[in-house]
Amino acid sequence: MFRFLLIPFLLFPLLTFAVELRGTGDLGVVIERATGSILIIETTHKKIISKVEGLGDLSHASVVFSRDERFAYVFGRDGGLTKVDILESKIVNRIMQSGNSIGGAISQDGKIIAVSNYTPGGVKLFDSETLEQLAEIPAIYGEQNQTSKTVGLVDAPNQKFVTSVFEANEIWLIDAKESKNPKVQKFKNVGKLPYDALISNEGRYYIAGLFGEDGLALLDLWYPEQGVQKIVSTLKKEDEKLPIFKMPHLEGFGVAGDYIFVPAVGRHEILVIDKKTWQEIKRIPVSGQPIFIRVRPDQRQMWVNFALPNNEKVQVLDIETLQIIKTLEVGKAVLHLEFTPRGEEIWLSVRDENKLVVYNTETLLETATLPADKPSGIFLTVRAHYIGL
Amino acid sequence: MFRFLLIPFLLFPLLTFAVELRGTGDLGVVIERATGSILIIETTHKKIISKVEGLGDLSHASVVFSRDERFAYVFGRDGGLTKVDILESKIVNRIMQSGNSIGGAISQDGKIIAVSNYTPGGVKLFDSETLEQLAEIPAIYGEQNQTSKTVGLVDAPNQKFVTSVFEANEIWLIDAKESKNPKVQKFKNVGKLPYDALISNEGRYYIAGLFGEDGLALLDLWYPEQGVQKIVSTLKKEDEKLPIFKMPHLEGFGVAGDYIFVPAVGRHEILVIDKKTWQEIKRIPVSGQPIFIRVRPDQRQMWVNFALPNNEKVQVLDIETLQIIKTLEVGKAVLHLEFTPRGEEIWLSVRDENKLVVYNTETLLETATLPADKPSGIFLTVRAHYIGL
Repeated sequence: MFRFLLIPFLLFPLLTFAVELRGTGDLGVVIERATGSILIIETTHKKIISKVEGLGDLSHASVVFSRDERFAYVFGRDGGLTKVDILESKIVNRIMQSGNSIGGAISQDGKIIAVSNYTPGGVKLFDSETLEQLAEIPAIYGEQNQTSKTVGLVDAPNQKFVTSVFEANEIWLIDAKESKNPKVQKFKNVGKLPYDALISNEGRYYIAGLFGEDGLALLDLWYPEQGVQKIVSTLKKEDEKLPIFKMPHLEGFGVAGDYIFVPAVGRHEILVIDKKTWQEIKRIPVSGQPIFIRVRPDQRQMWVNFALPNNEKVQVLDIETLQIIKTLEVGKAVLHLEFTPRGEEIWLSVRDENKLVVYNTETLLETATLPADKPSGIFLTVRAHYIGL
Repeated sequence: MFRFLLIPFLLFPLLTFAVELRGTGDLGVVIERATGSILIIETTHKKIISKVEGLGDLSHASVVFSRDERFAYVFGRDGGLTKVDILESKIVNRIMQSGNSIGGAISQDGKIIAVSNYTPGGVKLFDSETLEQLAEIPAIYGEQNQTSKTVGLVDAPNQKFVTSVFEANEIWLIDAKESKNPKVQKFKNVGKLPYDALISNEGRYYIAGLFGEDGLALLDLWYPEQGVQKIVSTLKKEDEKLPIFKMPHLEGFGVAGDYIFVPAVGRHEILVIDKKTWQEIKRIPVSGQPIFIRVRPDQRQMWVNFALPNNEKVQVLDIETLQIIKTLEVGKAVLHLEFTPRGEEIWLSVRDENKLVVYNTETLLETATLPADKPSGIFLTVRAHYIGL
């Protein structure tokens, strides 16, 4: 607990890394996908603090943070769950919790880490302090007791989690108030192959994208008894579809006022959905197949990156007019974008140029470039304070 | 910088307080108004970490946080501006910046502290690192160059601040991009005696309460060229007014979806304003004159405290139905309320019982009581990440 007093007697000879007493509100983690390492970054002075290695396969990794913003939980593609102390830049615990994983979430009170797994399909709950397993919810469905992948896992208010069960065409609402005995409410026939999902900022609407058909599946968590409804049925099936280079991510997608922005699967368009009617009100043509659509915290801008072969570009759109303000040539393979908490800057990872780039969001000019080894996801500690991130 | 390495040689003999290496995302500050002290609190384990003394007159104090969530800037009523290191529980700098002050703000990039003063009236800007004064904007108005109090100061996106100029009946939009040479745009005749203000969550709407007449003054920061408009003109002038026991606070008031909740000055009512039309759509009768109306982060509930003689109560309302869910008898003189970042709990200060009380917001049951010396404002570090807080 009181490390400063202990150090002179116990720890000093063992220290190999200089640990700084510092706040954690301006820190973040960047995934280095090829090397199984992460960078700890600091956004006030725009610098890299340290590198932590040994996190396994990070090719589709994501991160959540403890509520004190000290610990990062890194979900690796190989089923690894790693707890990193970002103050001391070290791994404090690491387990292989499944054979193939696709992301996780942290409960509202910060005590439970949930992971959605491909193999074996299901959701597991862990104690955020010890990584001890609390519960396992296998994704079994149908009369033959098939197993399914789980995807689009998010936390929701009141100690809940929501996940999509891919092959089962189901959405599960998990009540984890009793963390060793979670209650699962299953919504069936939600649409074909829900492949990812988002939860709206206030934690009310869970929206899953459907891979097997057009449209989206909506669950209103304030009225789960109303079941899941299909929305945006106006998607035109006769449209010519482009080959899909990369599955777009719904999680982290933007909600601004009444608008929800969704990447059109296989198309060079952003769908704009009105939350009041759940109708598609516009399609915005953009320079590629959108991957991440991020809304600036003041809800005036969204920034969008794209799949191959347009992944060197980022477009900035004005949310009020739904017009493109600027097309930025950022660099080869822009994989992720993350705003600083109050939105004055945005960090971008440029994988094939081995760098992170920071832009001022008002001037739209670059303010910093930092080296990183094939960076992908960027996750700032402010996520600890948000529902669904 | 690297304190751990220095300690054995330089600092250890001087240490009087055991400093813990820890995250700062779950910390906060509680004002002890009578003794000029603050408590550093931690919300994960619901505990008091330390007390810091010597902050002067804190009878109407407020707090903002540095973007790394390490430093609290405490604005005292006596014009004191104190920078507190909440990790080391010590004052790192303290200046008397005016004779009488009423709150402050921190710029979007975290580099500028702005303070609104009564005497001499005006706004001063300080370097958040050193507390060196950067600029002074005296609140001079009219043909006789009178001076005015400034109130309702908030930060806005793009390095701006907004303040109300009480006797001048003006609202000033301060562009602090050049921090030593701020530009001030003055909106005149906004209504009689703007006494406090809020800015909406996304930083777009600045709304000032008017003490000298019914109604509110609205500035749309996306369209400042449209000027300030009077809203909620439906306030009935013929209504019987109750004596005003305490000026209600607008700053920190709740915005949920399209609703803005405003305490009716001198009445036992909450006004509900629709942001789409700026009309009052409802008045909710409550158990006293509302002081703070706080919206839970998931926007399902609001919690309200009251002026004398009803200040032992707190009411919890459902936002969708605008109905009172529960009236809690919390204790004598409930002065402030603060939700944890993701809303699972709320902290309340109970001045005349010298305690802080924590409630679970789902069960509405008390989960902790902690001693505090005449506590008033409660400020959690998550505020560092929000616009206008």
